[in-house]
Parts: sequence; C-alpha cells; structure tokens
Amino acid sequence: MRYVLGEKKMKTRRSERLIDMTRYLLERPHTLISLAFFADRYESAKSSISEDLGILRRTFMIRGIGVLETLPGAGGGVIFTPGISKKEATEFVEETSKKLVEPNRILPGGYLYLTDLLADPELLRNVGRMIATQYSQSSIDVVMTVATKGIPIAQSVANFLNIPFVIVRRDSKITEGSTISVNYASGSSDRVEKMELSKRSLEEGSRVLVVDDFMKGGGTINGLRSLISEFNAIFVGATVFAENININSQFGDSDVTSIFKVTKIDTKNRVLNVEPGNYLANTDFSYFE
Amino acid sequence: MRYVLGEKKMKTRRSERLIDMTRYLLERPHTLISLAFFADRYESAKSSISEDLGILRRTFMIRGIGVLETLPGAGGGVIFTPGISKKEATEFVEETSKKLVEPNRILPGGYLYLTDLLADPELLRNVGRMIATQYSQSSIDVVMTVATKGIPIAQSVANFLNIPFVIVRRDSKITEGSTISVNYASGSSDRVEKMELSKRSLEEGSRVLVVDDFMKGGGTINGLRSLISEFNAIFVGATVFAENININSQFGDSDVTSIFKVTKIDTKNRVLNVEPGNYLANTDFSYFE
Repeated sequence: MRYVLGEKKMKTRRSERLIDMTRYLLERPHTLISLAFFADRYESAKSSISEDLGILRRTFMIRGIGVLETLPGAGGGVIFTPGISKKEATEFVEETSKKLVEPNRILPGGYLYLTDLLADPELLRNVGRMIATQYSQSSIDVVMTVATKGIPIAQSVANFLNIPFVIVRRDSKITEGSTISVNYASGSSDRVEKMELSKRSLEEGSRVLVVDDFMKGGGTINGLRSLISEFNAIFVGATVFAENININSQFGDSDVTSIFKVTKIDTKNRVLNVEPGNYLANTDFSYFE
Repeated sequence: MRYVLGEKKMKTRRSERLIDMTRYLLERPHTLISLAFFADRYESAKSSISEDLGILRRTFMIRGIGVLETLPGAGGGVIFTPGISKKEATEFVEETSKKLVEPNRILPGGYLYLTDLLADPELLRNVGRMIATQYSQSSIDVVMTVATKGIPIAQSVANFLNIPFVIVRRDSKITEGSTISVNYASGSSDRVEKMELSKRSLEEGSRVLVVDDFMKGGGTINGLRSLISEFNAIFVGATVFAENININSQFGDSDVTSIFKVTKIDTKNRVLNVEPGNYLANTDFSYFE
C-alpha cells in the first residue's frame, strides 16, 4: 500500500519536475548541473532525477531541442547543448531565402533592407541557434559584434552559448570608460575608419566569436580581428547572416561563414539573387543527429 | 488488455508531450495555440492534451514561470503569458543593487558603467521578464529603443512579449532606407540632437513601449515620444533599467518607470548610491500571483 501511494505521488511530481527541468535547462545551456542540485530542488531521490534526465535526453533528441549529456562521477552532472539538425537548418535557409529575395529589400548602393528580419524574435532565435550549433564544441568565451545591427544576432548567439557579448563601437561614447581603438579600411570603399571597445569589457586570452548582420568586402571583420589582437584575445571565427559576394571577399571559406550569399543586387532592374552561404558546409551537425 | 497497453503508451507519451509543450510555449508567449494544434502535433486525443495543459498550468504557476490561460470555444486554445512574481522581482532588485554600487562603476561626468551587466544573458532575461510583466496586459505592438545600449533590453522584452523591436538611431545609416527624423534637446546638456527611424519599420497606429538602459534627464525619452507622434503611432509607456535622479526628471511617475534610481554619484570620493526605482510600485503583479 505504501508503494502504491508512493508511486502515485511520484507520478504527479515527475510531470512537474520534467516541466520545470525543461525550463531550467533551456535557460542554462552549456552549464554543468549536478544531479544533487535537482534532487535538492525537487526533494527527490537521485535515482528519480536520473530517470527524469533519461526522458528529457530522449525527448530533446527526438524533438530537435539539443543534446543532454551526462558526465559521470563525483564532479559530474548534466550539460545541455542546444543545437539544430542539418535538416532543420536547411529548411530555415530555404524558407528565409524566399523572404530575402523580395525586390523591395534593395536599397541604393547595393545594400539590403534586413531590419524587419533582424527584429523578429523567431528568426533571431533560429539564427542564434544555428550559429551556436556551429561553435558548440569550440569553447567560446565571448561573442563580439559591431554596433548596431549585429547586436540582436550577438545577443541571440550569446543566449544559446550562455556567455556574454561585447559591442564594438564606431563612435566614442563617454559611458564606456577608457577604450582601445583600431583603424581599419572599410572594404567596400577606401575610407579608413575607427572602431573601439571598452578596455574592461574583454579579458586577455578570451576566445572570441565574431558575428555580424551583413558583410560587404570584409573590412569590418578585419578591423575586429585586429582589435581582438590588441586585447591579446583569440579570434576563433566569424559568422555573418549574409554576405555580398559581388565584392571580392578577403577571406577563405574557413575564416568567415555566411548563412546567406547575396550573389546579385541589380538596383536598376530591381533584381535580387540570394543563395545559401557556406554555413551548412562549415557546420558539423553530427553531435545533434 | 488493449486499455493497459494504451495507457502504458500514453504514459510515455505524456512526459514527452509535457517537455516539448513546455519548450513550445516558452518560445511562443502571448500567442493563442489551439488544442487541435497540439493534438495533431502529438497524435493524441484532445482530452489528453487538455489534461497536459492542466499540469502545465499548475506547474507554471507554482514555479513562477507565468500564466497559462485557456480560452474556451471553437476559436479557443491556450495563451502563455510569462511573468514574474513581486517576490522574485524584489529579490532581483535587491541582488542587482549590490552589483550596481561597486565604486569602479563610476565614470567621469556622472555616468555609470553598466556594459558588463547589460551583456549578461541571465540579467537580461530577468530585466526582460520584469518589463514584460509590467506591460503584459497592455497590448503592445512593438518595443522601441535608441541605439546602442538599450538594444539588448529591447530584444529581451520583445522576446517575452513575442513582438518585434525597432532601433532608433542617432546617426544616419544608408542601410535603413528612407527615414523620419526629429530633433530633441539632450536633457543633461543644452545640445540639440537628432534621432531617426527607418520609415518602414513602424506602422501607423502601433502601440509602442519604449525601453532604454539609462535615463539622465529624460531628453531622449522625450525625443522618442515625438518620433512616435511623427509616425502617428501611440506611446504606451517607457521603462528604463536605471535613472539618475540628480538631474530633475521631466516626467511624472506614471509616464516613465525605472527599475533602479541612482540617487548619488560622487566622482571625487567615489561614492555611489542606488535605490529601487518605481518599477515595483508601477507594476501590477496580481495576474501572476
């Protein structure tokens, strides 16, 4: 009789645990959480928590949420790594391409209006999840972008990697304190511009992932690379939402990844051509499949 | 026998459904989702889905995740409204105050270094959840901020309200297309500055929530209000992370909400005083408690 009652109570508690653990893990990716923590949080036996985690692991995998890995031993626990499957990423690229080729996105000077897309919570979540998938095994310490339009992407990636992000600025702002600055050649023109970052916002030796909305020539990414060197930090890679390959890129494929490639912007005839970038080729999805 | 097997199958499925539904709902707040959608997604009876939702509703409430409301009838379904309890919000304000009063945050000119805090995923999530709680019943269409440091807050609030956000800029950028601009008096000085927003990024009649990182005098918020009028949109309210009340604010308490009030910045003696702002008083938490 005691067992039956016990079991009944466990059943109710299990569903509550699963719901709360799902939320807890989704909000704390890439973080080791001990079984003891969950056992304490739910006043449950470690063996029950262990079973819960088995259910979570299976469901996370089936539903494409990510990988829940168990590290054994005294210092062990679980780590949730959010990620996307190649299939889902490919679908996203195909769907979003359709939105990108709308002719009213063409702006004077070969630019593309992306503001609406980069303000959409669902799109940002998918972009963040995709870039976080690409670097899920790369021990990134900080995401870097340059103001303004790369910020939402940086924030979304930082959320999925559960690390901070830093914003490099083209204008000096008093509220940043002392800064380190570099000059860089803007790729699309021959102008020399300046970018700077608050001194205390990046630690020496940090492993940095650069993200941005649009790459036209690559001068900005080059500038960010020299800025990272000035801080004695490490450039791990750069991924942009879209690149314009009309302008000859200064990079090889392994250095800069793009989700989309704009292969043609004909302002006069309002024709726009967008293709998948090298993201799908540059990303190893095997951990999530 | 058939029932026993069926029930066994249902049990396994229920835990999977609960995990996936939690993720699904967390990612789509303020959105009506029909029971039929879930029934189809999980190939389950509506009655089972209805039971699942009961468990989710109870757990979301107990664990302070938010409110899951059921709308009856043919066009009905469930809507998830994320929110924070007054207790949790108060704890956040107390904990974060301790981080804010670190003397090395004092910058020349009475500014405060907040860059590290506003780059921390967990802090941003809490700030976003708090501001979304304040406006959870206000039918907001769009979150507005001014570049650069308000952007992470805007994005987080937009995520919890599941609506887009727009970024007003102080510098003109070619990639925005045509813009509407206003001049405004910078509150802390007598300078007249300019801010502008891409024409197509805000629709007439939109209900706008303004957020920003730091308010010093309120000139920026006033500028944003006139910009909103220029677009024939509606200013619903403004909430800032922190305000400096050394400078006399141009607003009444009902117009602008602050989570923190900096009541003293003594640059010379490196003394800093931070108090809770009017956020806790201006927010009706009853829906979430």
